[in-house]
Amino acid sequence: MSSPGNFQAGAFIAVCQDGEGWEDIFYLSGFFGTSGALVVTPEDSVLFVDSRYIELAGETCACKFMSCATCGQLTPMRAAVAYATGCKPERVAFGGRKLTYSSYRELYSLFGGNIKLVDYSNVLMNMRRRKSYEETVKIREAIDVATRAFAAALAETSEGVTERNFAATLEYMARTGGGDFANLVPVIVSSGVRTSMPHAPPTEKKFERGDLVMADFCVRRGGYVCDITRMFSIGEPSHEICSLYSLVRWAQEEAAALVAPGRAARELDAASREVMEGASLGDYFTHGLGHGIGVSVHEMPSINQFSNALLTEGDVITLEPGFYKPGWGGMRVEDDYLVTKTGAVRLTDTLSRELFVVG
Amino acid sequence: MSSPGNFQAGAFIAVCQDGEGWEDIFYLSGFFGTSGALVVTPEDSVLFVDSRYIELAGETCACKFMSCATCGQLTPMRAAVAYATGCKPERVAFGGRKLTYSSYRELYSLFGGNIKLVDYSNVLMNMRRRKSYEETVKIREAIDVATRAFAAALAETSEGVTERNFAATLEYMARTGGGDFANLVPVIVSSGVRTSMPHAPPTEKKFERGDLVMADFCVRRGGYVCDITRMFSIGEPSHEICSLYSLVRWAQEEAAALVAPGRAARELDAASREVMEGASLGDYFTHGLGHGIGVSVHEMPSINQFSNALLTEGDVITLEPGFYKPGWGGMRVEDDYLVTKTGAVRLTDTLSRELFVVG
Repeated sequence: MSSPGNFQAGAFIAVCQDGEGWEDIFYLSGFFGTSGALVVTPEDSVLFVDSRYIELAGETCACKFMSCATCGQLTPMRAAVAYATGCKPERVAFGGRKLTYSSYRELYSLFGGNIKLVDYSNVLMNMRRRKSYEETVKIREAIDVATRAFAAALAETSEGVTERNFAATLEYMARTGGGDFANLVPVIVSSGVRTSMPHAPPTEKKFERGDLVMADFCVRRGGYVCDITRMFSIGEPSHEICSLYSLVRWAQEEAAALVAPGRAARELDAASREVMEGASLGDYFTHGLGHGIGVSVHEMPSINQFSNALLTEGDVITLEPGFYKPGWGGMRVEDDYLVTKTGAVRLTDTLSRELFVVG
Repeated sequence: MSSPGNFQAGAFIAVCQDGEGWEDIFYLSGFFGTSGALVVTPEDSVLFVDSRYIELAGETCACKFMSCATCGQLTPMRAAVAYATGCKPERVAFGGRKLTYSSYRELYSLFGGNIKLVDYSNVLMNMRRRKSYEETVKIREAIDVATRAFAAALAETSEGVTERNFAATLEYMARTGGGDFANLVPVIVSSGVRTSMPHAPPTEKKFERGDLVMADFCVRRGGYVCDITRMFSIGEPSHEICSLYSLVRWAQEEAAALVAPGRAARELDAASREVMEGASLGDYFTHGLGHGIGVSVHEMPSINQFSNALLTEGDVITLEPGFYKPGWGGMRVEDDYLVTKTGAVRLTDTLSRELFVVG
């Protein structure tokens, strides 16, 4: 089990209400229900759940757990505050990136203003950023499930299939292949001119001959996600499409070659952007190059023009250059990389980056 | 488009970052991207999005929208704060139930302490509680998709199918049948003794002869969810199971008969609980009777022993009595009701509440 460790605050508290704030609790305890509260002290960790989740806590939680009813409290939050207060901490830390403002106000009022509350988001985000071996194994497993699901969905696809049906098949293959059902990330599938939307929801549009299709899929497995984008063509792609796709691949390679501990994230973004700008497509590369992944789809480090991050060993990041020309369409290729002592491993190396052709 | 209307605060601001906080923006504008910021003033509403979402905003947003880049701002939040500040409001309201603490702190700092920020969660929750005709149509459509998906998944199920595969099939049928891909709610599927977990994630366990199966599915359509639970038996159910299931149905009916404007939510819970207690199952009915549904799966009013809510016309609520005996198993039946001028309409009336039998 992970622990915020030597955080000198006396106690850490995480609260999940109606699904908001599950990430911190999952990261620190393994529990992923939609409601619960966790207290971590230097000596101990205790998860409080409501009666719906006592058995799930037994199956998933790596620390002590109890029902809030057992402590005579109405909610997990109240039970956690009562327990934390009993530990007489000087300060109580929390993760403000995921805690809602309402939950924060409730915590503040339950602690009665006697205990200082401190936002430890940065500590948590930094802990979560550096992946352990076990975490990289889970991400690799997510990638395996995603890779097989994409191949299976592609094999069932043809001209005339709708974006909606392709997306549903990809989801189905991911779930029957071992993907988690909880905390799902929507599949992005677009085709033809709709590929100019970087994040397009699938529609009833049918794949037509000559269409380029964008599929961006995050599969979660054991609580950890991968994040992959692949393109395929319905029928033989045009020369223009092939050469633009090579360019996007090249933009990704230029960045990937730079990945190493100590490298400025901004340099990676600049390397990809330079390739796109060289082909007068810089204005259409309208997002950052990538981001960390883990329990959340977007974690530290951010990899964009404004990032101050330096890569470190244990980062798991995406590199996803692309371009989006309204009225024409767009392209993106996205892979996941582990930053190692000396460079990078492409974790998604079992999934070819070719421009797939259907039909 | 909905509007917080006469809220006397000068301006309302909603912020979505990395998927956190989308509900308020969707409710007020129709936009459901994972990042954006909305400003509502008595005169005007403007949505700010990043470059990834400008086309999606064009397709979905019912108010003015612009890219934050267009205003020379780095993020939608900064663009929204700059715009709101220009309106010279005395106070700016926000929805603290969905805004994260970090986003709140960022808003506070961007407004520079000169403008008072006020949590309007209760105003928003009350607005969202009373459904318009258009909203009930969307919920009915979600129910139609869910009903057909459940029937189709059931028809493909037999002894030996895993919880995971049944859940994946149900999801697939929901998505190909018109369900949204965004902001998904996990399917709950459990069988045999695992039905004693009210919220169980599907596993590799196979359906065995004599198993009772619990399927709790929320389908989203046009942004609005339904929430339904049905039970089915693998092979002919035992006499014990049949009579217990009748009891749970009866507990639901006792509550449903009371639904009317002005009725205390607590009375509904008491009516169901009394039935369960009469059969010495009260201790195993370990959750509240129901809750409002809409954009979120859990909205106002809460229907439990501690609720102070009175039902009002336009509420859409679930009634979902159940019991959960560890080591034996559990049952729940859940339907969605619209509170009308004179009573209730069961919106899920196209889906039989019988104990279905497979094989």
